Amino acid sequence: MADLPHCDTLLLNLDAGVLHITLNRPDSRNAMSLAMVHELRAVLESVRNDPAVRALVLRGAGGHFCAGGDIKDMAGARAKGHDAYRDLNRAFGALLEEAQAAPQVVVAVLEGAVLGGGFGLACVSDIAIAAEGCKFGLPETTLGILPAQIAPFVVKRVGLTQARRLALTAARFDGAEALRLGLVHYCESSENLDARLTEVLQQIRQCAPQANAQTKALLLASETEAMNALLDRAAEQFAAAVTGAEGVEGTMAFVQKRAPKWAQ
Amino acid sequence: MADLPHCDTLLLNLDAGVLHITLNRPDSRNAMSLAMVHELRAVLESVRNDPAVRALVLRGAGGHFCAGGDIKDMAGARAKGHDAYRDLNRAFGALLEEAQAAPQVVVAVLEGAVLGGGFGLACVSDIAIAAEGCKFGLPETTLGILPAQIAPFVVKRVGLTQARRLALTAARFDGAEALRLGLVHYCESSENLDARLTEVLQQIRQCAPQANAQTKALLLASETEAMNALLDRAAEQFAAAVTGAEGVEGTMAFVQKRAPKWAQ
Amino acid sequence: MADLPHCDTLLLNLDAGVLHITLNRPDSRNAMSLAMVHELRAVLESVRNDPAVRALVLRGAGGHFCAGGDIKDMAGARAKGHDAYRDLNRAFGALLEEAQAAPQVVVAVLEGAVLGGGFGLACVSDIAIAAEGCKFGLPETTLGILPAQIAPFVVKRVGLTQARRLALTAARFDGAEALRLGLVHYCESSENLDARLTEVLQQIRQCAPQANAQTKALLLASETEAMNALLDRAAEQFAAAVTGAEGVEGTMAFVQKRAPKWAQ
Repeated sequence: MADLPHCDTLLLNLDAGVLHITLNRPDSRNAMSLAMVHELRAVLESVRNDPAVRALVLRGAGGHFCAGGDIKDMAGARAKGHDAYRDLNRAFGALLEEAQAAPQVVVAVLEGAVLGGGFGLACVSDIAIAAEGCKFGLPETTLGILPAQIAPFVVKRVGLTQARRLALTAARFDGAEALRLGLVHYCESSENLDARLTEVLQQIRQCAPQANAQTKALLLASETEAMNALLDRAAEQFAAAVTGAEGVEGTMAFVQKRAPKWAQ
Repeated sequence: MADLPHCDTLLLNLDAGVLHITLNRPDSRNAMSLAMVHELRAVLESVRNDPAVRALVLRGAGGHFCAGGDIKDMAGARAKGHDAYRDLNRAFGALLEEAQAAPQVVVAVLEGAVLGGGFGLACVSDIAIAAEGCKFGLPETTLGILPAQIAPFVVKRVGLTQARRLALTAARFDGAEALRLGLVHYCESSENLDARLTEVLQQIRQCAPQANAQTKALLLASETEAMNALLDRAAEQFAAAVTGAEGVEGTMAFVQKRAPKWAQ
Repeated sequence: MADLPHCDTLLLNLDAGVLHITLNRPDSRNAMSLAMVHELRAVLESVRNDPAVRALVLRGAGGHFCAGGDIKDMAGARAKGHDAYRDLNRAFGALLEEAQAAPQVVVAVLEGAVLGGGFGLACVSDIAIAAEGCKFGLPETTLGILPAQIAPFVVKRVGLTQARRLALTAARFDGAEALRLGLVHYCESSENLDARLTEVLQQIRQCAPQANAQTKALLLASETEAMNALLDRAAEQFAAAVTGAEGVEGTMAFVQKRAPKWAQ
């Protein structure tokens, strides 16, 4: 198993193939500092090729998910000027790209503030579970700045029609509205949040890890790749999967009416 | 009128410009065998240039739409190895591509199991009517295999955000949830299913067949073609349509306050 | 401030940075004549580079938004033939492209008939507020013609799955259904329509105008541009925004706990 990096801004807990990643800067409602960006990227990198890690759960400490960018980092960049701002911003976008492409199933558990960068991070999860009382929003343009790295992922998440209203009005909204907009998959009361997470992780456990990773890659590719070529490639992957270890085990388990190894 | 091919796995009934295609392997909940794939493709091919066929209705015999791929075909491919699996899989994807591009309006009436390949087939319909009690799901990765040809069509159907949860958890869901996810256009009780189908076919009958076929092609093209070039082409098609037989008849019927020929 | 063009088919009223544009041919339910297309394009052009105009409100006089194309123009084109139809059609598509790309936030207030070309115009708004009693629909193919310029914008607005049913059945639907389909952002009773518009304009006023314009351009670009290159460009824009006039004012206002200039 890969070594997890040491982290100052994150709590890490690997349990039964699920890596629980807790954003842990509760004093600033888990504001996304550059240090946190670096640590999240390092964690994703450390498990990328680790088949023992099948799912990642992203959550915030202290009742908030993430209230957006970190003010101190912005002040630090101010001293250095344009390029420092650009690099700070782009690093966060790189995190979003890498989280989007993670071979693991990424589950986001959303509570409290889900603003700006926190909103962006929610947008790259495979499954998002929101507490009713969440406060979602893209406040950037009310501050005279842009949701520059975030906006493209919001369009991918909820489509252009909803994204344009949210980004151009900075409207705040709660978990029920997030469900209606298709931003999250579940909206739960606080007391039901953990039960829903448990259920989702149990569903993921039924799915073969490598098959899930390859399926996720196909889903993402289908937004940019030409259909015909993608289907040709997918058919090759299908043949490799069904004749590979997971396909053989899955078929045998099905015939023997037992749970496959990965679901045990 | 084109001859319809002889079919062992399908029932065909052409009635007033609507070809009713019934998947007819009820003993296996209409599992999508390679023979059924070939016959569906042959049927689509036989009516492709037949202006007398304006709509296709896809439905399953025996209370199920389609429970997925056929186990015997999979066993047969196992004997032959990788390439046989690949070709089996790719043939189903070709069916989905061809059904998606059919010039007719394709209506899917969904009952019982709508799983795997059946789910994929539902995704290429123009109008989908689900019974409340439907069981939708993508179980592939629980078997160690991939929804390889299906996944790209699920993304096209419900968007990346919903597709990723469905494919990576293999969650089962019913007709009401399918409506909420935008997978189907109607969710009806069993007794109202036929009435809704009748209503939809009546709406389609109001629309000029060739105009509908060209409009459908424009809708599909708009997902891949650059907007500016598409609009140029569309304007040429508009001019041809309005000066063509359907446009002349439609205008005359409008002025004379009567139904156009195609709606009679 | 830019001069607004003289208009015969539109009423224009600039109030506190918001240009209210009223389609004003109530006798024909504001049918989209070629003259109206030209005037709308001229208005958009006249304010394109005018930072004093932050939002555009599109609305129809007399209780209807827009009932579609103008019959007299169609009759006029008939006399001239194919190319006249093509150019008439394409000019409307150019209006939709230009309205979609307007740097201002575009708000559509929808009442009564929102049909054909009116439907298309609703589809390029950033925020759409519908009255409950609206009648939406794409009747083109019932007339033997095509929603040629409109169809691609409907797909962009509500996705392929909903667009194909609407365009291929010509189904009529009301404001509540439009909300459910994601075509509009709000559905209001007639008496609440103005209150909702006021609220939306107040939200827009909180957002820095240039930041909003750049964010809107990024949202639109994200549908066609490759993610990686877009994020690189967005990071440069972020750095320019935060060090520019709006970014400096926004930061200062935040620190001083006061409203920024643009929100006063």
